Amino acid sequence: MPVVGMVGGGQLARMTQQAAIALGVRLRVLAGDPEESAAQVCADVRLGSHTSLEDLMSFAEGCDVVTWDHEHVPGELIQALEAAGVVCRPGAAALLHAQDKLVMRERLSALGAPCPAYAAVHSTDDVTAFGEKHGWPVVLKATRGGYDGKGVWVVGSAAEAAEVIASGTALMAEEKVAFRRELAALVARSPHGQGAAYPVVETVQEDGICVEVVAPAEGLDPETAAFAQKLALGIAEELGVTGLLAVELFETADGVVVNELAMRPHNSGHWTTDGARTTQFEQHLRAVLDLPLGDTDGNAAWTVMGNLLGGEDPDIFERYEHVMAHDPGMKIHFYGKGVRPGRKIGHVNVSGDDLPRLRARAEHAALYLRDPGLVYPEEGK
Amino acid sequence: MPVVGMVGGGQLARMTQQAAIALGVRLRVLAGDPEESAAQVCADVRLGSHTSLEDLMSFAEGCDVVTWDHEHVPGELIQALEAAGVVCRPGAAALLHAQDKLVMRERLSALGAPCPAYAAVHSTDDVTAFGEKHGWPVVLKATRGGYDGKGVWVVGSAAEAAEVIASGTALMAEEKVAFRRELAALVARSPHGQGAAYPVVETVQEDGICVEVVAPAEGLDPETAAFAQKLALGIAEELGVTGLLAVELFETADGVVVNELAMRPHNSGHWTTDGARTTQFEQHLRAVLDLPLGDTDGNAAWTVMGNLLGGEDPDIFERYEHVMAHDPGMKIHFYGKGVRPGRKIGHVNVSGDDLPRLRARAEHAALYLRDPGLVYPEEGK
Repeated sequence: MPVVGMVGGGQLARMTQQAAIALGVRLRVLAGDPEESAAQVCADVRLGSHTSLEDLMSFAEGCDVVTWDHEHVPGELIQALEAAGVVCRPGAAALLHAQDKLVMRERLSALGAPCPAYAAVHSTDDVTAFGEKHGWPVVLKATRGGYDGKGVWVVGSAAEAAEVIASGTALMAEEKVAFRRELAALVARSPHGQGAAYPVVETVQEDGICVEVVAPAEGLDPETAAFAQKLALGIAEELGVTGLLAVELFETADGVVVNELAMRPHNSGHWTTDGARTTQFEQHLRAVLDLPLGDTDGNAAWTVMGNLLGGEDPDIFERYEHVMAHDPGMKIHFYGKGVRPGRKIGHVNVSGDDLPRLRARAEHAALYLRDPGLVYPEEGK
Repeated sequence: MPVVGMVGGGQLARMTQQAAIALGVRLRVLAGDPEESAAQVCADVRLGSHTSLEDLMSFAEGCDVVTWDHEHVPGELIQALEAAGVVCRPGAAALLHAQDKLVMRERLSALGAPCPAYAAVHSTDDVTAFGEKHGWPVVLKATRGGYDGKGVWVVGSAAEAAEVIASGTALMAEEKVAFRRELAALVARSPHGQGAAYPVVETVQEDGICVEVVAPAEGLDPETAAFAQKLALGIAEELGVTGLLAVELFETADGVVVNELAMRPHNSGHWTTDGARTTQFEQHLRAVLDLPLGDTDGNAAWTVMGNLLGGEDPDIFERYEHVMAHDPGMKIHFYGKGVRPGRKIGHVNVSGDDLPRLRARAEHAALYLRDPGLVYPEEGK
């Protein structure tokens, strides 16, 4: 059976191990520390840095395919691996579009995919010109390295823009989209060209961090859902993505607009571990190995995923026991991470027919695990 | 988060690792070889023998609880671990009833559980006397160490019995039960006394090996199903089982009769990995850790589990790809084992509403993976 190497030891690699166990595939991870999330649960852990070509080359030896837990491996190192004959999925050429937001915008616009207005900006004057043309506030994004709301600034004036410009980060400006809600379209594409699309989901963000996913997105117009799935499959095909592609979308009055891309298992797909026939982690392994893709149907009418964020008290065991007793049908996924305020430490999934009840259950667990006092704020905490 | 030590590196420990990853529990396994099924997929693997007290003691150090992948750890070693303060779940006193069939029969009969007629036998004359009282053929069982049909002989005469007696194995005789079909009742019990019962399933055996499980058992009288669940919960309580208890049953014209007990995840519960809200592996971890037990409801009207047995050709990769393409909604579970004829190398689960179609799908996968020529035998292979 094949060996898949995953660069990065985070929770995505950790959950990929669950899928690898079922498929009989050997998963090797490159971690920076033996206590990283995935390193705790894999037999084949190599310690090293994802920014060292030497470590990457040594890691790749004996792997049938190498894939990624995150987007932070420099493109030139992936190119060097490919030049040395290492099978990288996705490859450097595709992954660049998940690493550089300006490259992504230019390519997607050329393909005719719906995008907000954007421009590279190098000065406060550039931002002002953009704001005068497309309206204020303007969204400034670091072209590289942002995640979970980091690397994004919403500026209302030239003075505010000047502060961000002063940081020296390479930036682009984007129109602030007037969206109703955020959606995500998750698809897989295999090297020989098979594609598979999951139901389009709604993602709920707070302070730039995803806190809840509803699968499928409630009340989504079937034509818009089909358009979003085809859009994601088309982007995967045009960019030559192998593995998963998550397309984060804004839903507007006129349809959908692409926000961001990720080429790996994605937070918006965590509902699949209990809510879909094939988990996104299994699908990613199948895709990068060019194995036939799995069925993307949901197992229930609705699945709600709630992210678990750490609170002030790091000793969560009693709260963990409490939520298990409180809701025996809820599925808990812990990442083996130390608890810090606001850190993603796990997620829960609940599936069934009654969506408001499912949302309440997921929210209860997320709040209770953070701080029991948050559960009934009106009644005094 | 707690550390669970599982003695034995087989597929049950392997699949327990999937559940441990989600729960955030650390799983340590004691394996005889780094290539054993579970040793391939765990970060914390200790090599040693389950019959060495020294190895067991060293393994147990740092574990919050020790549990078992199989019944082959000698009872006196488990007693020694317990005497040294190691938390063993299930403990030696309970586990004895899954290790010694004669002890089990005596205890269950004393509890009033429905059992076939039985007797210890030491000679051909003992078997003959048993056969004259309860009818021929007589089932002879090794009181210890049998599995998958091994250690069981159906003898039709004193002469046949004499051959088995001559082997010197400690034996018991049992009445050959005229059963309609075989069932299994899987329950969990936690140290503080919480119990949970899965739906009663039908198990289909060929040559003493389980080949298929239908969950729930088709057309089972609800009173009989409830009786079987209560029987299993009662046995777990009376025997002080902590963790899972699988009660294999014969369904007869008059109800059910207990066949065997197992105190661990069990082949009859493999359907739960895709077909139930809580997998048996997660439930076992929750139970041995005295965590609240999970919901045992099924996710679909029916789930069919088909065991994958090895065929003559050990190179299964092309067949593996074929069955994935043929049936994208089927869930495959491979154990990382080398392929040998008749060896259990994995299982598949299919869930849905159309039971005959589900059985056909599971059978197709099992036959195709063994030998594509078996799939359409009438059309010539």
